[in-house]
Amino acid sequence: MKAVTIERNGEQKLAALSNDELIIDLQAAQTKRGGTYRVPETMVEAASAGPSFWTEIKEIADWALEHKGQDVVFSVESQGITVKAPIPRPLKNIICAGKNYAEHAVEMGSAADVPEHPIIFTKSPTTVIGPDEMISPHLNVTNELDYEGEIAVIVGKQGTGIKADEAENYIFGYTLLNDVTARDLQTQHKQFFLGKSLDTFCPMGPGVVSAQALKGEDISLKTYVNGELRQESTTSKMIFSVASLIEIISRGMTLEPGDIIATGTPAGVGKGFKPPRYLKSGDEILIQAEGVGELRNHVLK
Amino acid sequence: MKAVTIERNGEQKLAALSNDELIIDLQAAQTKRGGTYRVPETMVEAASAGPSFWTEIKEIADWALEHKGQDVVFSVESQGITVKAPIPRPLKNIICAGKNYAEHAVEMGSAADVPEHPIIFTKSPTTVIGPDEMISPHLNVTNELDYEGEIAVIVGKQGTGIKADEAENYIFGYTLLNDVTARDLQTQHKQFFLGKSLDTFCPMGPGVVSAQALKGEDISLKTYVNGELRQESTTSKMIFSVASLIEIISRGMTLEPGDIIATGTPAGVGKGFKPPRYLKSGDEILIQAEGVGELRNHVLK
Repeated sequence: MKAVTIERNGEQKLAALSNDELIIDLQAAQTKRGGTYRVPETMVEAASAGPSFWTEIKEIADWALEHKGQDVVFSVESQGITVKAPIPRPLKNIICAGKNYAEHAVEMGSAADVPEHPIIFTKSPTTVIGPDEMISPHLNVTNELDYEGEIAVIVGKQGTGIKADEAENYIFGYTLLNDVTARDLQTQHKQFFLGKSLDTFCPMGPGVVSAQALKGEDISLKTYVNGELRQESTTSKMIFSVASLIEIISRGMTLEPGDIIATGTPAGVGKGFKPPRYLKSGDEILIQAEGVGELRNHVLK
Repeated sequence: MKAVTIERNGEQKLAALSNDELIIDLQAAQTKRGGTYRVPETMVEAASAGPSFWTEIKEIADWALEHKGQDVVFSVESQGITVKAPIPRPLKNIICAGKNYAEHAVEMGSAADVPEHPIIFTKSPTTVIGPDEMISPHLNVTNELDYEGEIAVIVGKQGTGIKADEAENYIFGYTLLNDVTARDLQTQHKQFFLGKSLDTFCPMGPGVVSAQALKGEDISLKTYVNGELRQESTTSKMIFSVASLIEIISRGMTLEPGDIIATGTPAGVGKGFKPPRYLKSGDEILIQAEGVGELRNHVLK
């Protein structure tokens, strides 16, 4: 079971996603069921609530699925319900690790590009869009639109100086993220921020899976463009593990619940091909990760 | 007259600063005066309110100064009132221009470092502190603590694709900012974000001066460390002007009210000296800009 942010009757709320098929409106379910637990209103609030959130919402969701309550359980394809990005408007920029898979670092330059220390940059909160929302090609701004399929961590607990061996306690969950990039701007401006921060450049979601559900697993990650497999790797191939990223990022900077850390992309981005295979209007990008989900977006025609 | 954020009786509120000496609690003054204008509660709300904000608060402040109302007008040194950063918790990362003064670009490397396109990176919102708050030396994380005196723009209006010649309309005001930097981390991690984002690394304030009050002026900017002049330049020496920065940054990324753009630092940072003159515990950093104000902070002992 995953947590999702949905829009229903013009209102954003927290929901559960069961088997990637059924959406449970948690607040509505809890009202019908009549428990004392107050369902968080947003994903950031859920992240702050500690790991008990996951057991509480599982109970509510299981109850709702059993009672199949009207106005509580919906198909993901229902009219009137839209799955949004898990955190549609992050409270700070998305924190991103660059060149965190060795083969990707090499395809972006040479073996000298494999970093000794993680390369950390950010994307503006204004970049975030949800599943099935359109990526703008920004034709007046870039000629080199590229994709980067990634797994993102959502932080669940405030901390500074977090050690790698306790990092797990600071993770609320995982989701998928497309670190869309204008390669020409990324190169021109030296620092990555602008080339990574055009509006719609951060598709995210659909669901958040708890840290515990994935604990210790080597997650396989794939990106398809128009059905063609372009990126394929597993999280064990990261140069800096999630735990190590959290340790290094939090050394002097406080991490907070709701912070999003994109963990880097494997080899196979458009720029890595000779000649490069950049995205064009109408292209479909599908990111898949075992146990995390599928994130699909198109480039606006 | 400037706008400031103060803390009074444990509550953050908007105030006016007259001649850098007197603070006017705008809400309290307006209640006594009895007008229809509703004083914004935060600086971000003020920035969103459009240029009429400045005429409205000037009227309120002038009235308050004339009537010298109790519980309305205070000396900046009053007990129980603290001037905070103008936006104590920005809604996204602070946007920063790197190497935007040619002599500073050269001191950081060579003439080859003078950028053709602006170098844009960000600082986490968790870095922000106010005037007279302490900068942590982060002794366990960095050995190369450095200062960068800068003028910062606060955006007043949402926009994408803003042209340089209309950029003025998108500026709410100007303030001072110290882009404190851990040079070793900045170098190690290649991308600047982490070395710029340790907690307390963004002293800001004290006041915000309206765009109109400074219109067209060449602003002189100085930084002193322990009373010794280290940086001295004027905004006309920026490689990319404020208007040009706004045009380039907003080409594909929407700017929003309350966004903060730090416009770069002149030559004279600690790293620019041979040997470098980094900050140490107890040092005082004072940033001064004509018409904008004075921002003073110490490094924690």
